[in-house]
Amino acid sequence: MSDKKMNTKEFIIEGRNAVIEAFRSGKTIDRLFILDGCQDGPIMTIKREASKHNTLVKYVAKERLDQMSETGKHQGVIAQAAAYEYAEVEDILQAAKDKNEPPFIFLLDNIEDPHNLGAIIRTANLAGAHGVIIPKNRAVGLTATVARTSAGALNYTPVAKVTNLAKTIEDLKKEGLWFVCADMGGTTMYQLDLKGPIGLVIGNEGEGVGRLVKEKCDMIASIPMKGDIDSLNASVAAGVLAYEIVRQRLQ
Amino acid sequence: MSDKKMNTKEFIIEGRNAVIEAFRSGKTIDRLFILDGCQDGPIMTIKREASKHNTLVKYVAKERLDQMSETGKHQGVIAQAAAYEYAEVEDILQAAKDKNEPPFIFLLDNIEDPHNLGAIIRTANLAGAHGVIIPKNRAVGLTATVARTSAGALNYTPVAKVTNLAKTIEDLKKEGLWFVCADMGGTTMYQLDLKGPIGLVIGNEGEGVGRLVKEKCDMIASIPMKGDIDSLNASVAAGVLAYEIVRQRLQ
Repeated sequence: MSDKKMNTKEFIIEGRNAVIEAFRSGKTIDRLFILDGCQDGPIMTIKREASKHNTLVKYVAKERLDQMSETGKHQGVIAQAAAYEYAEVEDILQAAKDKNEPPFIFLLDNIEDPHNLGAIIRTANLAGAHGVIIPKNRAVGLTATVARTSAGALNYTPVAKVTNLAKTIEDLKKEGLWFVCADMGGTTMYQLDLKGPIGLVIGNEGEGVGRLVKEKCDMIASIPMKGDIDSLNASVAAGVLAYEIVRQRLQ
Repeated sequence: MSDKKMNTKEFIIEGRNAVIEAFRSGKTIDRLFILDGCQDGPIMTIKREASKHNTLVKYVAKERLDQMSETGKHQGVIAQAAAYEYAEVEDILQAAKDKNEPPFIFLLDNIEDPHNLGAIIRTANLAGAHGVIIPKNRAVGLTATVARTSAGALNYTPVAKVTNLAKTIEDLKKEGLWFVCADMGGTTMYQLDLKGPIGLVIGNEGEGVGRLVKEKCDMIASIPMKGDIDSLNASVAAGVLAYEIVRQRLQ
């Protein structure tokens, strides 16, 4: 996967209300095309939103908008938004095969904070993991904040979204992967053998790894804690565990 | 220090006597707001205290003070106090002595993001570090966001603020500490001996460790990077390095 970038699919949002809505929902608009000379109320609102978000605005002729339009109903405004496409779990396994390495996958059990998700994808990239798997429900998805916090890693590290994390773990076990989850009361991570094909399971910020997911794991790894408080930040914990795997693999 | 909690102080201090009292009790005042044009005796006393403590003073209109006021009785002066009291570097060394452990200190060279600072203080606490040292200028201080992100660690782990980080490193070398800074192009962290009394230097999010600080360091530690992007998130990098120190110390 290192040479195969994930597709950044640019998508088109057309029409006044849709564009205003896109801005207000926090969607990242890469570029805004407005019919040259258009000055009415809704267009002025859109211009204000654009300037608030430092969006690049281009004033173009009707022909240009007609050409770009997918619906034929652009009402004088078209926004280009970037989104990241999700990969499939198979893509992640294939990436490992392509590199001739034992698979190393992050599985995130309901990470809710986009900064944590972005930082974890960044870590997955640098630790040499082949991909990240997140669940469909509850967890945060690949938002613009996640993309930004990933510092570009989203362009390289595939992220797959699955319906049932426990089921995915079962399927991946058939592919030879072992699963280690981060939790208190497990074995100190330095004492585990983390060298083979592995899935590293990181839990939710508040609740840790869910019971059903935890039951599917082969090992529970604990980070030694000397302090007074309960737990590390989720992205820091993911980093510490990932690099214990890296250390063992380098030996 | 482990059993001595740092006190959480009130954020806003209003009224002449309260502000004078805050200065005299040694409370750290981050910012002072004085009614523009106010020149009477108590205000002059407050100005003298402010200049003695290098406190930033802002002269503002009555409306601004009214708006900031929580009691409605600001008497022309409002002080913003640090949410947490800073410790002294000596307190940190003493904490190590009290525990009969070789000192383990985090030094942060201009961390700017309060979420990173909070997460790093959290990591310092759990990795068993005796304290955190931050520079006075540019870097973020102990704001409410830092306190929240530290997940309570600010109550236990002392944080000292120093004028010149390079000078502090020199002073601490006389106490027997070795300094390792995190940077690219250094020695892979697994190959360094990180067991003794140690200062771990973490750089700014964008620029890394400054040249003057880096020159004072005895070792440059690199985290192995397998990926496509440049660097880990600063708080993740701090966690990975801190736990390599923990691993070596546990051996």
